[in-house]
Amino acid sequence: MKNIGVIVNTKRPRAGNVLGELRSLAEGHGFKLYAEDAGMAKTLGAEHIPVEDFGRKVDMTLAMGGDGTVLYTARALHGFDVPIMGINLGSLGFLTSVGDTEMRQALEAIATKNYKVSTREVAECRIFQNGDPVGEERALNDIVLGWGASSRIVTLKLSIDGELVGSFMCDGMMVSTPTGSTGHSLSAGGPILHPGVGGFGINVICPHTLSSRPLVIPNSSLIEIEVANAAKSLILSIDGQDEYKVKQGGRIKIRKSPHEVKFLQLAGHSYFSVLAKKLHWRGSSL
Amino acid sequence: MKNIGVIVNTKRPRAGNVLGELRSLAEGHGFKLYAEDAGMAKTLGAEHIPVEDFGRKVDMTLAMGGDGTVLYTARALHGFDVPIMGINLGSLGFLTSVGDTEMRQALEAIATKNYKVSTREVAECRIFQNGDPVGEERALNDIVLGWGASSRIVTLKLSIDGELVGSFMCDGMMVSTPTGSTGHSLSAGGPILHPGVGGFGINVICPHTLSSRPLVIPNSSLIEIEVANAAKSLILSIDGQDEYKVKQGGRIKIRKSPHEVKFLQLAGHSYFSVLAKKLHWRGSSL
Amino acid sequence: MKNIGVIVNTKRPRAGNVLGELRSLAEGHGFKLYAEDAGMAKTLGAEHIPVEDFGRKVDMTLAMGGDGTVLYTARALHGFDVPIMGINLGSLGFLTSVGDTEMRQALEAIATKNYKVSTREVAECRIFQNGDPVGEERALNDIVLGWGASSRIVTLKLSIDGELVGSFMCDGMMVSTPTGSTGHSLSAGGPILHPGVGGFGINVICPHTLSSRPLVIPNSSLIEIEVANAAKSLILSIDGQDEYKVKQGGRIKIRKSPHEVKFLQLAGHSYFSVLAKKLHWRGSSL
Amino acid sequence: MKNIGVIVNTKRPRAGNVLGELRSLAEGHGFKLYAEDAGMAKTLGAEHIPVEDFGRKVDMTLAMGGDGTVLYTARALHGFDVPIMGINLGSLGFLTSVGDTEMRQALEAIATKNYKVSTREVAECRIFQNGDPVGEERALNDIVLGWGASSRIVTLKLSIDGELVGSFMCDGMMVSTPTGSTGHSLSAGGPILHPGVGGFGINVICPHTLSSRPLVIPNSSLIEIEVANAAKSLILSIDGQDEYKVKQGGRIKIRKSPHEVKFLQLAGHSYFSVLAKKLHWRGSSL
Repeated sequence: MKNIGVIVNTKRPRAGNVLGELRSLAEGHGFKLYAEDAGMAKTLGAEHIPVEDFGRKVDMTLAMGGDGTVLYTARALHGFDVPIMGINLGSLGFLTSVGDTEMRQALEAIATKNYKVSTREVAECRIFQNGDPVGEERALNDIVLGWGASSRIVTLKLSIDGELVGSFMCDGMMVSTPTGSTGHSLSAGGPILHPGVGGFGINVICPHTLSSRPLVIPNSSLIEIEVANAAKSLILSIDGQDEYKVKQGGRIKIRKSPHEVKFLQLAGHSYFSVLAKKLHWRGSSL
Repeated sequence: MKNIGVIVNTKRPRAGNVLGELRSLAEGHGFKLYAEDAGMAKTLGAEHIPVEDFGRKVDMTLAMGGDGTVLYTARALHGFDVPIMGINLGSLGFLTSVGDTEMRQALEAIATKNYKVSTREVAECRIFQNGDPVGEERALNDIVLGWGASSRIVTLKLSIDGELVGSFMCDGMMVSTPTGSTGHSLSAGGPILHPGVGGFGINVICPHTLSSRPLVIPNSSLIEIEVANAAKSLILSIDGQDEYKVKQGGRIKIRKSPHEVKFLQLAGHSYFSVLAKKLHWRGSSL
Repeated sequence: MKNIGVIVNTKRPRAGNVLGELRSLAEGHGFKLYAEDAGMAKTLGAEHIPVEDFGRKVDMTLAMGGDGTVLYTARALHGFDVPIMGINLGSLGFLTSVGDTEMRQALEAIATKNYKVSTREVAECRIFQNGDPVGEERALNDIVLGWGASSRIVTLKLSIDGELVGSFMCDGMMVSTPTGSTGHSLSAGGPILHPGVGGFGINVICPHTLSSRPLVIPNSSLIEIEVANAAKSLILSIDGQDEYKVKQGGRIKIRKSPHEVKFLQLAGHSYFSVLAKKLHWRGSSL
Repeated sequence: MKNIGVIVNTKRPRAGNVLGELRSLAEGHGFKLYAEDAGMAKTLGAEHIPVEDFGRKVDMTLAMGGDGTVLYTARALHGFDVPIMGINLGSLGFLTSVGDTEMRQALEAIATKNYKVSTREVAECRIFQNGDPVGEERALNDIVLGWGASSRIVTLKLSIDGELVGSFMCDGMMVSTPTGSTGHSLSAGGPILHPGVGGFGINVICPHTLSSRPLVIPNSSLIEIEVANAAKSLILSIDGQDEYKVKQGGRIKIRKSPHEVKFLQLAGHSYFSVLAKKLHWRGSSL
């Protein structure tokens, strides 16, 4: 591995600190760096190319910042087989498990190919309004249909592989990948899905019934959600970004993308340890 | 009891059926009826007066329709000591426990004062924007701050009697009376509060943490919710009606209203039986 | 398919009704029946063989009764590639989706091989006390460690693939297959796992912490639960049968069995429809 | 206030450290100390009397240890109007909110009567087997019926004020006071009930249904739980102490005790702050 893309969230106060170190480590290993930002390229002694070209030019990419930076990077590289190593500039993230004080180990790991690879499924979402396709999106974390400019309850019809699961009077519904299961899904009562589970989680937000429970289905499923009844537009959020307004009659269809994302982690990385630290998970309140 | 207000949701298909019966039963008992709608007044042989005058003219009011009709009636009569009997035109409701086939028993009960009285607390909500009061509302069910035109997470600061409970990153927050505990609150994971419990329930909607749980506090408390951080306006819903948009810096203060609402129920009324029927509550899935 | 094993829960009142029909349908199709019970064999005109020999003699087995009958059948046939069709004698079950009024369709489906096959993973559990293996069990539904002759809280240490997940002060812990996810797991707050999800669910019973959530992990994982601290023996229940008492220092190790169970379902079978009927699942309380 | 009872959990390693300080502070304020333990009495210069006599001799009692020490103290003093101040020897407890480094402030507060009083309701539980009363207990925290020497599910019939709420197939059921709502009840999914809420929480443990939810009822209610169906004895735990085994046909009746417990807290005590610290409550996982 010689060509390394670098994407940095420069708003993070600690971003500056590590760039010098990264440059000198990269030079030591004989890595060629690429950056999408002109100033960043200069600081790093990197070649300045648009992010669209990363997919063709780089062997792997360092995403430095928070989990949002990694989501941005994964979107930019979608469809290319370019693994990503997330470096957190500040506090540990689910996708940025390498600390900025571990730059030396990180570059060493890349040089010697001594790392763990965590492959993550991506969900693909096609949006239809009045039967017509109006867009297509990809989510590493989650696809959430909810909120809106009024408090009115809506009815969402959920089908899986053409079978009706139910019509839910609710405030919204969400589909999460295992990667997204520790995000919004968790706050809506969903389970934690280990990245190795080949499934999607489906949660109803504020269901108007006692009998709704989180569902986990195989990621080979085709999920359809139809806005069967709504006096308002719902917001469709993809990985936390508002992308569409969906009205009554609108439908979304979700299935697994043929493209995966590969994350590189240091050899000592432990999923459950990150879970515990990040979520303040603890087995006892004592 | 001689003067009886009648409020009917005329959109309910069964509304027509019972009006004739009501008229003749009322005549039999020597009751004088009052209606806010001219046509209705004619049908019932009732005096036509605006709903604002019900509080001064009537001894009790029949609210005929669904729970929404009762909420409307309670709002209209707020501050007057006029008990309400909810008659459902269709399916049983929490507040409309008398069926439209029980009109005879209902009028008989009113004539003989042989009924149960269920007193319900009302929550009073004052809304402030930039420190200035912008409105005041009353809720029989709940006060919900949430939704909005984007999916962005917000931070809500909850204080009770001046003590900070916590700053919650979340999608919203709600305060419910016991009456409202079987509504939106239940769908957000809240407990069922028997109407006799002198408390308010507080639930966070999609809290961005594992450690939030439903809170029940004495209804003598002063609850303050401050929109500490929000990139969008939140919708403030009072008993399911959108009333305000609340922006960052906005605050709501909630406390018990000095005025209660009294509901009249037939002698055989059972709270737990309505709960079971209405929520499809069951102790076993067998 | 010619040789069909028959296992019937004769305690079910409706068992008698269908045996005559089964006999004549089987004769019509030219099926040879086998039964483990002498009286049953006589009634059915079946060959009487011990259940241990079913694996070698029969092509498929009809399990007639409730889900318990199917669990018994699956245990008896474990390791043999003999598919099972569950026929309910009474109310619909998750594993007995064919009604006893559908015997004709069932036998027809078997004759024409026109059925759905639902393959279910089985969990294998090895039990250790003081470091020594004391037993090995298999579960189609779940493995639950809990209860006991006192109310004292215990500490259970959960590890997955050798990584510590946490030490949980709790009343118990359970591991469920997708098949078992609609049973005890659901009552402990676990999600519904579609049978096609290659995972196990792990739930803590009454965790002494706010921050525990249901976990779903790949079924390729090795799960270890150690009774790290307990003043009492815990009961180890396998598919609802008490099998062992496990004391402090005891450990159980759970992984996927190399053997699966195949269930035959009528062509029109819908997983979500059974879910809805059986759990009284509904998307609205209206 | 001059006569102060002292109950110390001498197993706590930090117990020794504070006794000297307590003795000298008490002498400084002219307090007379009483202790139930001869050795303790000597160390403290206290009068040695049995705990049964505390109710008549002392004006208030210091319970030093953990929440268990306070529960023991409250049981010993039940029926006497003797307030308790809980001092934690180690980590903060819900009932031991005064730290052992705050002994000076604590004694000062007692001397000047400058403290908060938090009044707590107590639940009274009568146990019946075969219709005969077999015991009567009191709980400051909770009354839990569950566990047992087998994993078999049981059916518990819950009635409130003579009205049937439901028959629950489950692993157990619990009734908690607000004081107990942050204990076992919370781990079973119950809400947090502020001590000022005049209610009891009722939770079903592992209900065999989707539709059970935590209930909060007025503490003026009479709660009856009947073991309608059980192949095993259930354990009845009162404030975490096993007290009875209850078989099929057994019943427990729970209502509010006429006697309350008063806890003394330092003036700056905040319920929500203790909640946050003790439960690691946080509004965000960031």
